[in-house]
Amino acid sequence: MNLALTLHYLDLLGTVVFAITGLLAARRKQLDLFGAIVIAMVTAIGGGTLRDLIIDVPVFWTQDDLYIYVVVVTTLLFFFLARYKRLPVKMLLFLDALGLAVFTIIGTQKAMELGFSDPISIMTGIMTGVVGGMIRDVLVGEVPLVLRREIYATASFIGASAFLLLIEFGMDYETVVIVSILLTLAIRVLAIMAHIELPVFISYKAPLNSE
Amino acid sequence: MNLALTLHYLDLLGTVVFAITGLLAARRKQLDLFGAIVIAMVTAIGGGTLRDLIIDVPVFWTQDDLYIYVVVVTTLLFFFLARYKRLPVKMLLFLDALGLAVFTIIGTQKAMELGFSDPISIMTGIMTGVVGGMIRDVLVGEVPLVLRREIYATASFIGASAFLLLIEFGMDYETVVIVSILLTLAIRVLAIMAHIELPVFISYKAPLNSE
Amino acid sequence: MNLALTLHYLDLLGTVVFAITGLLAARRKQLDLFGAIVIAMVTAIGGGTLRDLIIDVPVFWTQDDLYIYVVVVTTLLFFFLARYKRLPVKMLLFLDALGLAVFTIIGTQKAMELGFSDPISIMTGIMTGVVGGMIRDVLVGEVPLVLRREIYATASFIGASAFLLLIEFGMDYETVVIVSILLTLAIRVLAIMAHIELPVFISYKAPLNSE
Repeated sequence: MNLALTLHYLDLLGTVVFAITGLLAARRKQLDLFGAIVIAMVTAIGGGTLRDLIIDVPVFWTQDDLYIYVVVVTTLLFFFLARYKRLPVKMLLFLDALGLAVFTIIGTQKAMELGFSDPISIMTGIMTGVVGGMIRDVLVGEVPLVLRREIYATASFIGASAFLLLIEFGMDYETVVIVSILLTLAIRVLAIMAHIELPVFISYKAPLNSE
Repeated sequence: MNLALTLHYLDLLGTVVFAITGLLAARRKQLDLFGAIVIAMVTAIGGGTLRDLIIDVPVFWTQDDLYIYVVVVTTLLFFFLARYKRLPVKMLLFLDALGLAVFTIIGTQKAMELGFSDPISIMTGIMTGVVGGMIRDVLVGEVPLVLRREIYATASFIGASAFLLLIEFGMDYETVVIVSILLTLAIRVLAIMAHIELPVFISYKAPLNSE
Repeated sequence: MNLALTLHYLDLLGTVVFAITGLLAARRKQLDLFGAIVIAMVTAIGGGTLRDLIIDVPVFWTQDDLYIYVVVVTTLLFFFLARYKRLPVKMLLFLDALGLAVFTIIGTQKAMELGFSDPISIMTGIMTGVVGGMIRDVLVGEVPLVLRREIYATASFIGASAFLLLIEFGMDYETVVIVSILLTLAIRVLAIMAHIELPVFISYKAPLNSE
């Protein structure tokens, strides 16, 4: 299997899992079928859309109908399956972690290929990974997952950096893609399971609006 | 009257009505004149701006001052008229439906003209129709209209699909534009009046955060 | 000191102060280090990113790593300093006013240089000034500052207009930049201090959701 194909399959996988996180959010809010498709769509293609606008290449889903179909079919399947089967409680968090990992590395890779510098490729990777979920959370009125305490953007940052570093070390391209996706996923999943957190600002025990 | 002119007038009509929905939201939140202009502006030009960025054409309002003037004048007129006259209760919903219909068809048409495929043109149309209102609702802290239960994105989807289908059937272009706008509007208004809703996810009567 | 350099330094200053307003918001919400970087980043580069996408030039921070480094270093410094020292209460509002002033004028100038008309350059300036803060406020779940009652977008509008007017009068370019930034800042700060407000919509003393 060649690299381009691997990346394409991973991209579709990321699209499916992010669509499902959108659908889980939609179900919590009791949205109807089309509201659910809207949320699934922005979650799945939001990050990549912003990435392509910023690095100034044609927006990926306007070049290939497949992405739209994937989101629509995922929604229809999920929508009716959800009536018979209940997904485990932590599913949203795990799928979101997988989407984060896949999209981070694809975003980093795409910017690097175009010749952007390392910091900019990392920024682009993080953006691809976190923006879809941010829009999802804002739309359903929740504080974005990325801003809550468990390591989130951190996992994305480490994964993107590892990707660039391993490429520099001359490791086989396809292996680097897989390794850095698994690394990102592992960090995020460990953080979820162990509630590992970064330091927060010292609280002054002040009332919330006193600043 | 030729087609380009019809579309241009419809576009301005959509701009005015979406600006007014922004102003109605601004009034509910007791915003001042400039806060009101900001909301009116993002509601009226948000969807078309994202559309133009994604299909990679110059953003429409940067090519023609008229759109900005239309929003500003609409705001000033409305702002002072609103002191003397109260708009009927369901006005926001109806104007929003009209804006949705007009912008959906214009967005679909613009992408189709550029040679994008049918699914992508439909996506572009829906996006043009719903994004301005979504930003408006998020900014004033409400759950976006498009995510509430009555048929909304559904109307936009049916309108966009009808537009492409009727064009394929060889119907006169200008008639198709008018017919598909009226169809979108009719579906949405009927849904509002009759509270017609699509199926929602089965509720497990579980507490909201149990997932 | 020549103009290009002045603008570049001012741009970096705006980046630092907007990053800090993001960090102050992050601290109020007890975000961790990476959540804080995310908020600081979108606040500092959000407005300019949208501006560059709309006027169709390469997004500024993809052309120069410096902006990303500035936000990251600002965050790290602030994050640890914040443990020892408490910033005065009105700091967020003042820094936000400075960022608003600097970014408004830079945005207006950039669009004008590209040959856009006056109303469009003003729109671009206001957008550059207010969008980063709007995203910051939406992400942390607050009503955007720009929509609250004290003169905000108004200050941005007056500053952008003054900039174009003074250029037209043939005043020295660099002086115009400085004067119009100070003007914007002065209006906004005075509005904060004196609670000067624009007229709001007449309240009908109606319950909030009656419309």
